[in-house]
Amino acid sequence: FQPWQPPGDQLIKMNFIEVTPEPLSLDRIHQLVVDPTCGAVCHFVGTTRDSFEGREVVRLEYEAYEEMARKEMLAICLQARQRWSCLRHLAIYHRTGLVPVGEASIIIAVSSPHRSEAIKAVEFAINAAKATVPVWKKEIYAGDQPPQWKVNAECQWAGTATASAGADKPASPGEAASSAGGARPANGHA
Amino acid sequence: FQPWQPPGDQLIKMNFIEVTPEPLSLDRIHQLVVDPTCGAVCHFVGTTRDSFEGREVVRLEYEAYEEMARKEMLAICLQARQRWSCLRHLAIYHRTGLVPVGEASIIIAVSSPHRSEAIKAVEFAINAAKATVPVWKKEIYAGDQPPQWKVNAECQWAGTATASAGADKPASPGEAASSAGGARPANGHA
Repeated sequence: FQPWQPPGDQLIKMNFIEVTPEPLSLDRIHQLVVDPTCGAVCHFVGTTRDSFEGREVVRLEYEAYEEMARKEMLAICLQARQRWSCLRHLAIYHRTGLVPVGEASIIIAVSSPHRSEAIKAVEFAINAAKATVPVWKKEIYAGDQPPQWKVNAECQWAGTATASAGADKPASPGEAASSAGGARPANGHA
Repeated sequence: FQPWQPPGDQLIKMNFIEVTPEPLSLDRIHQLVVDPTCGAVCHFVGTTRDSFEGREVVRLEYEAYEEMARKEMLAICLQARQRWSCLRHLAIYHRTGLVPVGEASIIIAVSSPHRSEAIKAVEFAINAAKATVPVWKKEIYAGDQPPQWKVNAECQWAGTATASAGADKPASPGEAASSAGGARPANGHA
C-alpha cells in the first residue's frame, strides 16, 4: 500500500491509527509509512513479557476505551508533527484482547527524510502513548495466582481513576472523567 | 526462530550481523531479536530516497568491504552492550548491490526488557554504523546525469580515503588503511 500521491510538490502526510483485536503485522504497518521521499523509518514494538515482579505471566489481555484511545493516539501524531515538521507518515496501532508472550500489543512507526527525527518522534510517541492512551492491562499469571487488571503505571489519569473506582478493575477514564464532570481523563493532557 | 535457551537463569544474548545482496526481511529480523523476557523492540530501517540535492535518484547501489563491515557491525553491538547492559538481542543487517527506491539498505533491531534502552541503542547503532561501517553508495540518477560513488558523508575514514584515492570511486578503507600501514580505517574508531 502506498498513500495516493498528488501531482506536483504537494506532500500527503498520513496518520494511521488503529485499535484492533487482530494480531499486528509489522510488515504491513511498515508499508503504510515507508515513502519514496524518506530515507528513514523507525518502529517501536511493545511486546508481552513473560514475567512481572517475579511472577510468570502467561499472557496479557488489553481492554481499551476505544473512542478515547483513538483520539489520544491522533493527538500524539499531531503533537509529534508540531515538534518535527519534517515527519512524513505516522502509524500507531494498538492490539486489544489476549496478547500472548512475545507478540506485539503496540506498534509505532514513523517515516522521515532523515533518521534523527524519525527516532525522536518514535521515542516521544511511545512515551506519550503510555501516559495518555486509555488502555487497561490484565496480567494472567501461571499457577493459581489471580489475574490483575492494571492501568499503565505511567498513565496520567491512573491515580484518579483507581481512587474513584475502588474495585478490582480501575475505573475507565470515561468514568473517572464523568465523576469529575468532563469528557476527558481527569488528569489527562491538554 | 528463537535463540536456544539454556535451562535456569542464564540469559543468551545474540548479535546477528549480516551483509547480503538479498532483500532484507523486516519480519524475519524482528523475529531474530524478539524475546519472551523483553517488553520492547526498536527498529531502524534505512531506505533509498528518490532524490538527492534536487536530482531524481532511481536506485542506489551499495558495495561493502564485507569482512571489515562485519567487524565494525559487531563492534557496534559490543559498544551498545557496554552502554546498556540490559540489551537482549541485537541485529544489524546491511544490503549490498542495487536497492530500489523505498527498499531497505540497512535494518537495525534491538530488544530489551524496557523501551528506553532499546530506543537509545538503536539511535547509537545507526549513528555508529554511518560513521564506521565501510560501505560505498552509488547513486543512479534519472536522465543522462552520470552516477556518483560516495562514501557516507559522516564516515570517519571518508576524508582520508577519498584523498588517497583521487578517483571516481573513493578508496576502500582497506586501501586507505594499507597506505597508512594498518588493517583498520585510517581514522576508524578504536
